[in-house]
Amino acid sequence: MSETIRILGLDPGLRRTGWGVIDVTGNRLAFVACGTITSADKAELAVRLATLHRGIEDVIRTWSPDEAAVEFTFVNKDPISTLKLGQARGIAMVVPALAGLPVGEYEPNKVKKSIVGAGHADKNQIAMMIGILLPKADPKTEDATDALAIAVTHAHHRGPGARIPKA
Amino acid sequence: MSETIRILGLDPGLRRTGWGVIDVTGNRLAFVACGTITSADKAELAVRLATLHRGIEDVIRTWSPDEAAVEFTFVNKDPISTLKLGQARGIAMVVPALAGLPVGEYEPNKVKKSIVGAGHADKNQIAMMIGILLPKADPKTEDATDALAIAVTHAHHRGPGARIPKA
Repeated sequence: MSETIRILGLDPGLRRTGWGVIDVTGNRLAFVACGTITSADKAELAVRLATLHRGIEDVIRTWSPDEAAVEFTFVNKDPISTLKLGQARGIAMVVPALAGLPVGEYEPNKVKKSIVGAGHADKNQIAMMIGILLPKADPKTEDATDALAIAVTHAHHRGPGARIPKA
Repeated sequence: MSETIRILGLDPGLRRTGWGVIDVTGNRLAFVACGTITSADKAELAVRLATLHRGIEDVIRTWSPDEAAVEFTFVNKDPISTLKLGQARGIAMVVPALAGLPVGEYEPNKVKKSIVGAGHADKNQIAMMIGILLPKADPKTEDATDALAIAVTHAHHRGPGARIPKA
């Protein structure tokens, strides 16, 4: 009998951070919950980051994941966008780490390959495969879908020996 | 009689984050404390960000600043460096915000102009002026010196009406 591991996937963004929680038992995946944390465009940056920080804390408190996984993306044409993404991504990485969870990082191509089988899959293919892999999932946003895809990618890559005990 | 405001300046970086605390009473500045938070190069990113997060929390708990100020820099030649800086900067912004402090942001040129009087001042000129403005300061690193410079810049720019009550 396999242990069940609960995984939190996060697709970070300053305006919208998607989150998705799945349970993994051996090779079986089960949808648990998903959603989107939003921050008001007009608020100051520090306040927006605090909203994101508290939102992820709430998700961890509510769903008690064992491990977390965050998408590793960067925007290379526009340094301001890259800096903004980095700020949101820092929060998405640090909140699970502060809670003692190991945090995996996956590049978008790895996520696509893991879900669809090809590194150049589009958003619709990802959404369709999430519907097949997690039939009970009901993501309301693309960000929540992506977060579930990141959680599934972590489930595929973590391996039986990857479990790190909580601090 | 003027109220005394305590300001925390932060110069964020993944490897080394400088911090500096000063008291401002009317036009008078007084050095309180400064230091550097370092994270181990070899640790995982999420763990390094958690070290930084806890380090800034400790500084706020120990010195109880009323306001914070963070340098707004970005590296535009290398997107990976920009993303890394953004991650550290997100932590430097969010920890004071979570503690209810207003957080100011200052571009490097504004810091240089505020301290030395010219936007193209070099590191030595900044260090010399910090020695004059805050004679009791004993920064052991360039990062701590820069953090004090950011705190002084905030003291110059916040104005009497800029006080925002703690949340």
